[in-house]
Amino acid sequence: MKKEMTTMDFLDRAVDLYDDVVGVIADDGTEYTYAEFNERVNSLANVLADRGIGQGDRVAMLASNTHYFLEALYATNHLGAVYVPMNYRLVPENYEYILNDCEASVVIADYDFAEKVEAVRDSVPAETFIGYEADEIDGDWEDYMTLVDEASADPPERADLSEDDDASINYTSGTTGDPKGVVRTHRTEHWHALVLNQHMEIRDDDTYLWTLPMFHCNGWGHTYAITGTGGTHVCLRKFTPERTLGKIRNHDVSFMCGAPTVLNRVIAYKENNPDVETTGDRELRIATAGSAPATATIETVEDDISWRIIHIYGLTETAPIITTSNSPRRLATRGRSLKVKQGSEVLGTDVRVVHDDGTDVPADGQTMGEVVVRGNQVMDRYLNKPEATEEAFNDRISGYFHTGDLATIDEDGMISIQDRKKDIIISGGENVSSIEVEDVLYDHPEIAKAAVIPTPSDEWGELVTAVVVPKPGVELSDADVEDFCRDRMAGYKIPRKILVQEDLPETATGKVQKYQLRKEFWEDEDRLIGQG
Amino acid sequence: MKKEMTTMDFLDRAVDLYDDVVGVIADDGTEYTYAEFNERVNSLANVLADRGIGQGDRVAMLASNTHYFLEALYATNHLGAVYVPMNYRLVPENYEYILNDCEASVVIADYDFAEKVEAVRDSVPAETFIGYEADEIDGDWEDYMTLVDEASADPPERADLSEDDDASINYTSGTTGDPKGVVRTHRTEHWHALVLNQHMEIRDDDTYLWTLPMFHCNGWGHTYAITGTGGTHVCLRKFTPERTLGKIRNHDVSFMCGAPTVLNRVIAYKENNPDVETTGDRELRIATAGSAPATATIETVEDDISWRIIHIYGLTETAPIITTSNSPRRLATRGRSLKVKQGSEVLGTDVRVVHDDGTDVPADGQTMGEVVVRGNQVMDRYLNKPEATEEAFNDRISGYFHTGDLATIDEDGMISIQDRKKDIIISGGENVSSIEVEDVLYDHPEIAKAAVIPTPSDEWGELVTAVVVPKPGVELSDADVEDFCRDRMAGYKIPRKILVQEDLPETATGKVQKYQLRKEFWEDEDRLIGQG
Ligand SMILES: Nc1ncnc2c1ncn2[C@@H]1O[C@H](COP(=O)(O)O)[C@@H](O)[C@H]1O
Repeated sequence: MKKEMTTMDFLDRAVDLYDDVVGVIADDGTEYTYAEFNERVNSLANVLADRGIGQGDRVAMLASNTHYFLEALYATNHLGAVYVPMNYRLVPENYEYILNDCEASVVIADYDFAEKVEAVRDSVPAETFIGYEADEIDGDWEDYMTLVDEASADPPERADLSEDDDASINYTSGTTGDPKGVVRTHRTEHWHALVLNQHMEIRDDDTYLWTLPMFHCNGWGHTYAITGTGGTHVCLRKFTPERTLGKIRNHDVSFMCGAPTVLNRVIAYKENNPDVETTGDRELRIATAGSAPATATIETVEDDISWRIIHIYGLTETAPIITTSNSPRRLATRGRSLKVKQGSEVLGTDVRVVHDDGTDVPADGQTMGEVVVRGNQVMDRYLNKPEATEEAFNDRISGYFHTGDLATIDEDGMISIQDRKKDIIISGGENVSSIEVEDVLYDHPEIAKAAVIPTPSDEWGELVTAVVVPKPGVELSDADVEDFCRDRMAGYKIPRKILVQEDLPETATGKVQKYQLRKEFWEDEDRLIGQG
Repeated sequence: MKKEMTTMDFLDRAVDLYDDVVGVIADDGTEYTYAEFNERVNSLANVLADRGIGQGDRVAMLASNTHYFLEALYATNHLGAVYVPMNYRLVPENYEYILNDCEASVVIADYDFAEKVEAVRDSVPAETFIGYEADEIDGDWEDYMTLVDEASADPPERADLSEDDDASINYTSGTTGDPKGVVRTHRTEHWHALVLNQHMEIRDDDTYLWTLPMFHCNGWGHTYAITGTGGTHVCLRKFTPERTLGKIRNHDVSFMCGAPTVLNRVIAYKENNPDVETTGDRELRIATAGSAPATATIETVEDDISWRIIHIYGLTETAPIITTSNSPRRLATRGRSLKVKQGSEVLGTDVRVVHDDGTDVPADGQTMGEVVVRGNQVMDRYLNKPEATEEAFNDRISGYFHTGDLATIDEDGMISIQDRKKDIIISGGENVSSIEVEDVLYDHPEIAKAAVIPTPSDEWGELVTAVVVPKPGVELSDADVEDFCRDRMAGYKIPRKILVQEDLPETATGKVQKYQLRKEFWEDEDRLIGQG
């Protein structure tokens, strides 16, 4: 029989089987059983339904890792509406773009971030603005807690969901200036969660700490997988090594995720606090992705911090997981050094590394090609961008999603990412579009030319680096450039390194040869992208 | 993106990632890497394609747990044909029925069983008969090994598979005399394998011993799950405790499945051979289903044999797994006694226990109702039996598959099966249709009335028991009845206990009150069905 594969299956099972179990622990320590959590989901669904939200409407969320991020996800999908979690580090113009692009009807925001939406309120289509701790927000926001407390906990009618319905839209920095809305369906999310379970070894007694931002691909799918399996979510509003270690010990955390930067920050903290306990009573595993962890990072985390590393790879467009080196069989024979590899295709997934003409590169661990993938975890489309969608699926080879990542593949089918085709910098696990930063730099009245490239950084993997050519006769300081950027982009996008040059290497047709610029910085590295 | 979910995804991944790994070990110890196994699959696919087999055709298999059972499964599906594995314990008339019902084009059979098909060869539609060790078969059979050795190992064209295409048909004893063909699609098999992986804790370094017949629901889905994950299949032609333990030690087996009877036989063997080693170097887990293992069986297996028990429940119609008590969270708090329960719904699955009117029974561990289920692992239909299909999905409540099993459900959502609505006896893990046996007894010239019921047995769970009323003036011996049955039914269906009575309890309309008959035998038991 066909049962529609939906995200709601996971909450339904948690409620059926684990109603008495603490499913969600809020950042302040408040515990919600799955029964209580579900009542809150129902209450919020009633609030949204009352405001006219139904099938296909978009509900945007601006919050860090909180219990109400999870509540809103399920309340939205219960109504057949589409969840749009937004990166909380962006600037008002970005929210204006996103909320218009997805035609959001509702914005739910944390008091810490709501004012960035308030600033563009009049230019976005949303009519309902709900704030968590609305008192703290300067503007006309309804209070989340009051609404949920006052609404009925009886569920409104469940939407008649098809697995092909849109479930969520996650925005990702494009290689063009504008972020792209990655649309994923219920089927995509459901299937990905099943496969995630397998490769992340998720069990119903897992206690999962939210170190990874929930807005990143819906927490790399763990918002669904942990719920469906019956694990416990531990929310963490803001990552610091100290708070993370505290929660790990308090809740005996068994699993979490984070970019290598998270690992590096914990390593640094532990160096300064050698006596600190880094685990509870159980084994703790951490899945890492976003960039490759360096060998030294892996060794230090496993040996000194006592966390077992699972290295996975993927993109917002792929839910994300498409490969992992978490293969007990291969680890047993090849040893831990395998963990620096992005790894091999997950269950039911077809990952290939191909030449320009779409043929496979040899599996020699040497020849580079682009990583392409077919699988049910791959997005449906980019919202409102049919051309970008068409290109993503048909650039070198038809019917495969093109990742823009360049890799080698070895005899075990394990890939190692070496370079990136797309103009993206990955710094501390966040993607920065070079073009977006360049666009801002070109607005600077005293800059003639600019190119933004990644340069190596042990701490951040890559540093956003601007190579700028001042207009004739102008003296340009780093501070000038940084200040100019600060008002115009999210903090993590601001160039951390600024190099003033007389000119940029260009092709005959005047296109900047970024590769030339990048190359010299990466000469001492194995690859052209960051680790760590 | 939508990628059709097919069974071939699992072989494809094994070939991509584990081509150098020993994927299949034949019963005689011959090892095939996944690359070699795949070549054999391709060769067989060429053989079948040459004989005109293509999309939608049915290929029947009659063999015990052998490498070529696995080869034929993938070769068949590669061509888009449908695999029909048959129980090797049946009699020629059964094969005649099945091969006609599914209109099989090809029969592949082991030398041990082929002659049972040869006996009805002229009354079945198949035109191709392939025998494993055809020399040993009396009849005109092509030799499997010769065909595979001589065929090209280049794959013929892969069929253009849709996930809704039929993948396999498994015959199950119906409550009517005729077996019913359970049709499952590629989607069903694929999705079930993902969920199986989760609850069986399958990993790529698992070495799986084939103690469970492969023909039972395609080995409860392990033909797919073990392959896709990259584990190793160890084939075992014939179960004996001694051979099983030998293979476990030789191959360091980590996982297997079997009905409780298998457990009981190993326990008995170990009692007589207290020094025998029952595991290799690794932890060994065994999934059991078919009937409930008794508490004593669970304890003895875990404590004395050192195998960890995973109790699962399901039917041929459900792939089979729909519940399991393998919940680390619940086992930690409720203790091992939980393992006697059939358990709670697996991921993405909706299992309910309902009254006659389709409403849920209270979750009090007391009130009985019928187990019904919705999930992607549930079959598409019974072949050629639209009425049976309609009833199975809509009897008490619409849109749920009705299992015919009666159970209670507890506060954790764990079910305990207590009784059976359907007229089935489960003896040693095999289903016996009471009606089928009664039909034969009524053919006996000296029997006036007969009713076939289960009675308790420590060794077999349930014994097939015939209560017969002789015609007036006739003396009927057990041997008379058994001999009569021997020629007319599979050995495991023959009544092991025969009770001669003067009459049977009947309703006013003359229907035999089987419940009255059964009741007295089960007075000392907790439930009305067998354990062990
Ligand atoms: N494990 C990894 N190793 C190296 N790069 C990675 C890894 N995981 C993700 N990435 C990079 O991050 C990109 C996806 O970013 P995002 O869509 O923000 O998740 C990929 O295309 C890669 O360039």
